[in-house]
Amino acid sequence: MTAHDTKIMDLNRFDPSAPSDRLGERLKRMLARRFATFGGNSILFYKRPVEMVSAKGAWMFDAEGKKYLDLYNNVPCVGHGNERVAEALFRQALTLNTNTRYLYDNIHTYAERLLATCPAPLSNVVFTCSGSESNDLALQIVRAATGGSGFIVTENAYHGNTSAVHELSPSSCKGRRPPPHVRLVPPPESHRSGDGDPAGTLASNMERAIEDFKKNNIKFAGALLDSIFASDGILGGPAGLLKPALDVIHRHGGLLIIDEVQPGFGRAGKGHWNFARHGIVPDLVTMGKPMGNGFPIGGVATRPDLLEKFNRETAYFNTFGGSTLAAAAGLAVLDELEAERMIENADRQGEYLMGRLRELARTHTRIGDVRGAGLFIGVEFSKPGTREPDRESVTRLVNDLKEQGVLIGASGPFANVMRVRPPLCLSRDDADYFIGKLKTALEGMAPG
Amino acid sequence: MTAHDTKIMDLNRFDPSAPSDRLGERLKRMLARRFATFGGNSILFYKRPVEMVSAKGAWMFDAEGKKYLDLYNNVPCVGHGNERVAEALFRQALTLNTNTRYLYDNIHTYAERLLATCPAPLSNVVFTCSGSESNDLALQIVRAATGGSGFIVTENAYHGNTSAVHELSPSSCKGRRPPPHVRLVPPPESHRSGDGDPAGTLASNMERAIEDFKKNNIKFAGALLDSIFASDGILGGPAGLLKPALDVIHRHGGLLIIDEVQPGFGRAGKGHWNFARHGIVPDLVTMGKPMGNGFPIGGVATRPDLLEKFNRETAYFNTFGGSTLAAAAGLAVLDELEAERMIENADRQGEYLMGRLRELARTHTRIGDVRGAGLFIGVEFSKPGTREPDRESVTRLVNDLKEQGVLIGASGPFANVMRVRPPLCLSRDDADYFIGKLKTALEGMAPG
Repeated sequence: MTAHDTKIMDLNRFDPSAPSDRLGERLKRMLARRFATFGGNSILFYKRPVEMVSAKGAWMFDAEGKKYLDLYNNVPCVGHGNERVAEALFRQALTLNTNTRYLYDNIHTYAERLLATCPAPLSNVVFTCSGSESNDLALQIVRAATGGSGFIVTENAYHGNTSAVHELSPSSCKGRRPPPHVRLVPPPESHRSGDGDPAGTLASNMERAIEDFKKNNIKFAGALLDSIFASDGILGGPAGLLKPALDVIHRHGGLLIIDEVQPGFGRAGKGHWNFARHGIVPDLVTMGKPMGNGFPIGGVATRPDLLEKFNRETAYFNTFGGSTLAAAAGLAVLDELEAERMIENADRQGEYLMGRLRELARTHTRIGDVRGAGLFIGVEFSKPGTREPDRESVTRLVNDLKEQGVLIGASGPFANVMRVRPPLCLSRDDADYFIGKLKTALEGMAPG
Repeated sequence: MTAHDTKIMDLNRFDPSAPSDRLGERLKRMLARRFATFGGNSILFYKRPVEMVSAKGAWMFDAEGKKYLDLYNNVPCVGHGNERVAEALFRQALTLNTNTRYLYDNIHTYAERLLATCPAPLSNVVFTCSGSESNDLALQIVRAATGGSGFIVTENAYHGNTSAVHELSPSSCKGRRPPPHVRLVPPPESHRSGDGDPAGTLASNMERAIEDFKKNNIKFAGALLDSIFASDGILGGPAGLLKPALDVIHRHGGLLIIDEVQPGFGRAGKGHWNFARHGIVPDLVTMGKPMGNGFPIGGVATRPDLLEKFNRETAYFNTFGGSTLAAAAGLAVLDELEAERMIENADRQGEYLMGRLRELARTHTRIGDVRGAGLFIGVEFSKPGTREPDRESVTRLVNDLKEQGVLIGASGPFANVMRVRPPLCLSRDDADYFIGKLKTALEGMAPG
């Protein structure tokens, strides 16, 4: 089994060619409408897809009246149906929605509030519409600043969907080899490999990749790393994990882009940014998903000298990026994180959940590892008595749990890591509900 | 004077190095906040920037209590502060905002309503967050379908800001030469050149560019054309303008992407899509700006066979693209266009405005040409008695009109084309207001 074979499992997609007799008329009709307009390959969750009708806090509700605890969606970080965000959108849409070529107070307030969460040298921000646009822009800034084109990413990275970012996202390339200007390094994994020094290994792999660029006359530009390696299996790692790699990158004149699109905005539980856990200051930080609680907004925080170099050769403008409406949504999210102390909550509930999951691991030997930070947790499943990936158990659990009212995902090159990534408003009761359902599902499986 | 020299004028940017003593304390404070966070090169309109505070319909209001007729902004197509859109956002944000991997009725209704405006073979749509993401995705689909990499665009085209689309946007490249896989062709201009057959000329320029790809062993992929050549000077052109070029592209196995990001959604006054005026069916149509009246949404409409080929090699997913919130905004825009008969209004007011502008041209010889379609009008200024570009008059008028309460832009490689591009709810009174202000401004200039 190669990593690529598991991609479809990982996405846990609906298979349109499977027998549909148990789907019911309503679902069949909706699927027909969908495939007629989105094409037959548009990605749809679950063996039996779900028609959602509403959602509130950490819960979603389907057309059949069933409720689901949402441990999957990281976009609605301050909760589904959040009133502060909805009201901010309504008020701002009625008042003024325009681009950043006019002055408007809330745009500047948002930029200041956001940058106040970043370490000092990162004092400039460019707003975009998505994490993909953010990573794409970060690549442009790094190319302009270094004159290089060679980038390093991890083996199963996902950074977005534009042409340039797609080339740096091996997890969506369906087995194709990366282009010549891209080098892949193994993620700093230590459970399966038994590596006692993942930070050192990452650094020496970087060193090797940079040497290889030199040998091939490709000028090294930098590395693009998800600070929690979300699609590589959620590697929270020991504090300091990224420090030696950053030193190598800088020593060779490259820049480090840290992708906080998934772990950012408090999910990791210790402040706004997960990279801070590793005691580093990256050259650029990219943001997206939770930034507007579902309103499309992204951003790149960086140093003024880097932005200035880029602006000298490119007249960059983003029509919707940092619009007054986007700023209103972004401000409402920052307000809500603060007012409801959601980062502290992510930290507390994350610790609690990891404790309960480790308890389960003691009796359920399929669970090989529990790791992560805050409310971004990976539960790795291995075949009993080994460290061999057990994707079958995870695939089954994802679908079983959905039937039991829990939405959850899978991650990693072998899709054998259960991904726990709920809205940050998750309560202790919600956490207990999940553990109860997981326990039942595990007990329903053949002993392993 | 090269086309590149005029870029800054074209953008009509604020120059932070100019004396600031007349700006006032409030503006100076806001500018300082802006440059501290967005960097010194972020694009800001006008010699004296404007702080906006609200907007309604076709009008915007600044912090000094001054009102402006907005003939610049094409994003709020159904009007600033539109209530139908604001209410749709509010209701949907409270009900359910999630991605397309779950089923939800309004996503599918929106896809169906949108595709019903497109010619039959374009029966699939992929939603994105912006025109840039749409054009970037279209390039990926064309590369996958043709196996080619060579693209043709016009000399002063602008198609967006991602790495790949930027390479196809000479107007934002600040004079750098395009990369080897890009060929530039002159836009089908006929006023300055006196070309009586711009359609035929475009086709033979395409032919030549394709031959040049062959000579250089670059496989031709296709062309990316803005159907109204917005940044090349707004070339509405005679009906049928694009037909011969499309035939050439298809004869050589290429595909045509029509960029409707600016002219689309009824602006051109005859139906939803400007390309329809030319009697063609492109292979892909890209959409953006007005699609959600300021909510970030874009899309690519294409044929199922092209999308399927692309999906075979790429697992494309767009987190925010086509979310339930985006669909609610998109549906509200389609509803409003219909309920308020805005496309008919664009047609009617556009005809009226062009008539009045042509009247002005009879006494003001600086106006060399008035052209366009619906509410997308270009007014070309030339030095008296010549066809030599007169950018000075346009730059002065753009700033004068802003002082007189009219927001308007410039376009074209020489920034000598005044760009009239208001919200589609522009009234007859608004049109008369503009003509009155323009007449006064023209009369205030030295006779030319």
